Amino acid sequence: MDVINQVLSDITPQDASWRRRARERLDQLAMPPWALGRLMDLAVDLAGITCSLQPAVRHKVIVVMAADHGVVAEGVSKYPQEVTRQMVATFLDHGAGINALADQAGADVRVVDMGVAWGTDDLARSRRLLSMPIAQGTGNIARGPAMTKEQAVACIENGIQIAGELIGNSGYDLLGVGEMGIGNTTPSSAIIAALSGESAAKTTGPGTGIDNERMRHKIAVIEKALLVNRPDPENGLDVLAKIGGFEIGGIAGVILGAASLRKPVLIDGLISTAGALIAQRLKPEAADYMIAAHRSVEKGHTIALQYLGKRPLLDLDLRLGEGTGAALAMNLVEAAARVLTQVKTFAEARVSEATE
Amino acid sequence: MDVINQVLSDITPQDASWRRRARERLDQLAMPPWALGRLMDLAVDLAGITCSLQPAVRHKVIVVMAADHGVVAEGVSKYPQEVTRQMVATFLDHGAGINALADQAGADVRVVDMGVAWGTDDLARSRRLLSMPIAQGTGNIARGPAMTKEQAVACIENGIQIAGELIGNSGYDLLGVGEMGIGNTTPSSAIIAALSGESAAKTTGPGTGIDNERMRHKIAVIEKALLVNRPDPENGLDVLAKIGGFEIGGIAGVILGAASLRKPVLIDGLISTAGALIAQRLKPEAADYMIAAHRSVEKGHTIALQYLGKRPLLDLDLRLGEGTGAALAMNLVEAAARVLTQVKTFAEARVSEATE
Repeated sequence: MDVINQVLSDITPQDASWRRRARERLDQLAMPPWALGRLMDLAVDLAGITCSLQPAVRHKVIVVMAADHGVVAEGVSKYPQEVTRQMVATFLDHGAGINALADQAGADVRVVDMGVAWGTDDLARSRRLLSMPIAQGTGNIARGPAMTKEQAVACIENGIQIAGELIGNSGYDLLGVGEMGIGNTTPSSAIIAALSGESAAKTTGPGTGIDNERMRHKIAVIEKALLVNRPDPENGLDVLAKIGGFEIGGIAGVILGAASLRKPVLIDGLISTAGALIAQRLKPEAADYMIAAHRSVEKGHTIALQYLGKRPLLDLDLRLGEGTGAALAMNLVEAAARVLTQVKTFAEARVSEATE
Repeated sequence: MDVINQVLSDITPQDASWRRRARERLDQLAMPPWALGRLMDLAVDLAGITCSLQPAVRHKVIVVMAADHGVVAEGVSKYPQEVTRQMVATFLDHGAGINALADQAGADVRVVDMGVAWGTDDLARSRRLLSMPIAQGTGNIARGPAMTKEQAVACIENGIQIAGELIGNSGYDLLGVGEMGIGNTTPSSAIIAALSGESAAKTTGPGTGIDNERMRHKIAVIEKALLVNRPDPENGLDVLAKIGGFEIGGIAGVILGAASLRKPVLIDGLISTAGALIAQRLKPEAADYMIAAHRSVEKGHTIALQYLGKRPLLDLDLRLGEGTGAALAMNLVEAAARVLTQVKTFAEARVSEATE
């Protein structure tokens, strides 16, 4: 817990003076006022995050956290649990959606085994796999807690350690968080319900595509998980331990670690945003370092984004996870930085200003 | 007119069998059904456009058409007309918004003088400037036609020629259309009103940022232009000649040329979309080759996109033009192509399918 407490105390808000300096420059660019809209808002955020008018966002990495979930025993997903491990292998084999979109964005992909059932030891030769399992899957949240308090601390600390290595050692300056874990929309919708106070019926969607009957069952499972575990909505660690997942805790840790090092983090879909809400609960100022990449079709995501206070950059009917939305949005973050660094002012370009 | 007629007859719809083949492959990818949403819709379009499951979209170019407008004499813009020429110089000097965003997308920029007041001869040493002026600005549409029928034909033919050279000689396979021209939201809103049947009050916005009083005046100017010129909404060439602009005709030409060569074209904001509507009116099937990059805050743009039958990829409160939205969306087009070419199927990745 010392590691977490240190990181939480290191996180401070975006820097107001760098935000102001960025706005002043952007107001002078050779174009009508704020004509690049949300790209300019984002440029101001990047300045406030990095304390620079030349925010570095060229070295990009997507961290894909993978883990399994005891709650799949309740029949909440239509895919078998073995798919988590198979998809980890596909990420390492460079054949998944996230590989294609990260390649397009010029981002690397790091996969983390945070607790995949049956393990990933035979895959661990890949430099792209970080093996840091907490256990081979969580407990079934419909019958008891997902994990112990110590395990909740450990998965956040894993995330903090990974962020520190990726930023401090590997030199990445723009991170995205993604995930893989069959069944993980169930704990995510439970977390969003617990933290936002909305009902499970409102925060739960079809996940990978279950029918209406199974969705009613999934909602009932989440309601039972909330009833059995009674997570304390004021305590992010309690929520994570009782109804969370190892990858969700890992994502919260990466975000907190990046925020403490003043680097921007792109949040992906429903599950990543559940992790972001845990991070926000632990340290509200951490939200200053989060960029919402996209709006998922999973309806709980919209509630989670509202609760986080974020308007997403993209709205493309995605529902894959893996960090795919985060990868797509990396181009927009880089574009925002270039607006700040590369576009000339009226004076620099010798362009006449408005006559009004 | 022979050139235009030949191109129009060369344009055929997207290929249904390649669309079907793309859908079949995408349905088998190792992910829940259609989990990448609109990227997958776009991938189907790319297959239908290019007749290939490996659509090539790596060699990208933004064509920025520049021209001036006689209607600025009515006081419809708050920037002086000299800004058109100054911004052309800034594009060539690589200091404008489009330069920054095209660089980020890995796209080249070509600037075309379609009719800039006072000319661009002193800038013409740049390889990036194509000098094809029709005249040094259009007539004042509030008092008469923008141009002659012959000039309307010539600016579309210029666009067709440019598309042919960029695709046939320079090997570009993804085009975006942008523009620069002080006052050009006025003819664009007039074109959108004429073709959609909506009132000028509905298709007109503040452009570069005029106040409410001047906006009422701008609407009155557009109403007068429609009354004085009586463009025939069934005749795209008549609409262009009477209330258009040289750069708007050039954009229509680039789109038609690209469509005839089966290449996708990204449409940018209000002015580009006015050009796209002219192209669509001349040949409805040309719309099959257009990709709507973004939704501008300029309110007539939403009407124009509806009339074109397109849902934009991005919604970032942009209102700059220059092709900036098209440049941002190029990354999404490339991502869509990669989903089709790079992501493995369940069978290829040996991932278990759903049990339902």
